[in-house]
Amino acid sequence: MPSSAQSTTISPLTTFLILCCFTLAFFPSLFISILWSPYNYVFPPLAAPRGPSSVECKPPYVCTAPTVNMAWFQKTLSLPPRSRGSYLVTNDIVSALPEISSYKTGLLNLFVQHTSCALSLNENWDEDVRADMSDALDRIVPEDKGGRKGLYRHDAEGSDDMPAHVKSALVGASVTIPITGGRLATGTWQGIWYLEFRDARHSRKVVATIQGEKM
Amino acid sequence: MPSSAQSTTISPLTTFLILCCFTLAFFPSLFISILWSPYNYVFPPLAAPRGPSSVECKPPYVCTAPTVNMAWFQKTLSLPPRSRGSYLVTNDIVSALPEISSYKTGLLNLFVQHTSCALSLNENWDEDVRADMSDALDRIVPEDKGGRKGLYRHDAEGSDDMPAHVKSALVGASVTIPITGGRLATGTWQGIWYLEFRDARHSRKVVATIQGEKM
Amino acid sequence: MPSSAQSTTISPLTTFLILCCFTLAFFPSLFISILWSPYNYVFPPLAAPRGPSSVECKPPYVCTAPTVNMAWFQKTLSLPPRSRGSYLVTNDIVSALPEISSYKTGLLNLFVQHTSCALSLNENWDEDVRADMSDALDRIVPEDKGGRKGLYRHDAEGSDDMPAHVKSALVGASVTIPITGGRLATGTWQGIWYLEFRDARHSRKVVATIQGEKM
Repeated sequence: MPSSAQSTTISPLTTFLILCCFTLAFFPSLFISILWSPYNYVFPPLAAPRGPSSVECKPPYVCTAPTVNMAWFQKTLSLPPRSRGSYLVTNDIVSALPEISSYKTGLLNLFVQHTSCALSLNENWDEDVRADMSDALDRIVPEDKGGRKGLYRHDAEGSDDMPAHVKSALVGASVTIPITGGRLATGTWQGIWYLEFRDARHSRKVVATIQGEKM
Repeated sequence: MPSSAQSTTISPLTTFLILCCFTLAFFPSLFISILWSPYNYVFPPLAAPRGPSSVECKPPYVCTAPTVNMAWFQKTLSLPPRSRGSYLVTNDIVSALPEISSYKTGLLNLFVQHTSCALSLNENWDEDVRADMSDALDRIVPEDKGGRKGLYRHDAEGSDDMPAHVKSALVGASVTIPITGGRLATGTWQGIWYLEFRDARHSRKVVATIQGEKM
Repeated sequence: MPSSAQSTTISPLTTFLILCCFTLAFFPSLFISILWSPYNYVFPPLAAPRGPSSVECKPPYVCTAPTVNMAWFQKTLSLPPRSRGSYLVTNDIVSALPEISSYKTGLLNLFVQHTSCALSLNENWDEDVRADMSDALDRIVPEDKGGRKGLYRHDAEGSDDMPAHVKSALVGASVTIPITGGRLATGTWQGIWYLEFRDARHSRKVVATIQGEKM
């Protein structure tokens, strides 16, 4: 029965080749290493860079960029409408921006989109400081009541308008506050102030931009 | 003709092995899954993280970090030389920075490299506001013409120099403006102002830094 | 000896199949290309995106995100305790932040965690400018010595406290300075100023936040 003997006998060469094939197939790392060794010998691969630019990959084709974890967030807030005065708005701002708590290190920029009010950082405890601030700014940039002194050309929107623009230039339209460990890194006595310089209540919009490294 | 019969007959084992080989070869996902299943069973892979740190890969080795799309841009601009006064430069700045339009969310920082002028944000409509601003700042920080009042020690560069430094400290050397959808998120009446405090024309340099998430 | 002849003769079909197998095995790119060609024909792959989001990978599974090289750094500094006056602190700040030198493009934010002092940028050469600045701010926001004029309600912490808060609102609690090529991009005559508005020495903390693209 030579034919039945043939069907169970594989030639030694075939056996060797098939075994090689399977050995390599079942150890793909070995397979890939052997296969690419001449290429890698000729063109040695650069050491995989460390730091934020390194990406870890696992078979089959799942890669992770481990430390690139930066994010931007932007939101427009409305401040509670107020007439002339200085107001502490830390709580309004912080409660409208729960996103702050997800940032390990970052910066919060608050930018008021108006030119007759201002944002600042100042004392957060005694109300008198806020009243004194408004009075002091009135002395620095006096209003020209009735236009008697001829201090300002621009009076179309009322005598309180031009002083408001000057105070806005002095105090500024925006504040930038560091974020550390999910919280604003303000000092113990520091609060966010909204200074309204117009007599009438105005609705003021603030663009809040958070950027940083997330937790 | 036993030899010709042999050449067309492959043994059942050989056939099975070759078929296995090809089946696996032509379904590499299956191949890789089967191959790595014992390893993955012992060391279960972490779920691929979602969010900005996940990287998508496709065979053969083409990977994309889908949402990490942040960029920095910096350029030094020259402001048109001007003598004492307040000037609206929104158009000069925006036309010199076409890069703003490629940022979805970001911040523009403008920083003037001089100490006797300032940048600010203020009313962008009525020219009178700009003239009134210069006059109001002159009243707040008066010049000591002829040195009669002895207001300032520093007068080597002229009587307009020291008041210019004080105004610069009050108004500030830089502004930070949010970018939203490729445009500066300034309010309707808000423009970028360049305030020159020296009498003579000066050439002023501004470092513009844009950062953010690109479209 | 037909059986020994058989053992060294591989049938032409087996030879062909084994050769195919090896050809593909030793040219994995060809193998993968052929294998995925029907799939890629039906679902054409998107062009690998260029720019900061592209990731380069090399077998076996070593990937690099080439241009995502951004970093945040934050540190709290203590300013040397000083009594009332204007001080140039550029060297103190720069020497406490050697990390600046590793940033190609970025921004440094300095934020003082107090409400009766300020940070600013101003002239870095003549000491007289700093003395004149303190005097000019005293004229703009006068102190109510002995409370005779009744200028301020808030006087619990001394007559120098409320004017200090007003000056702090005018000058500002923070400065943002661009970084270019590992150095602060300040102008030739520009230095970082710390303005102390209280009479007594105070220990002031500054949160320094650096962000940007690393070299």
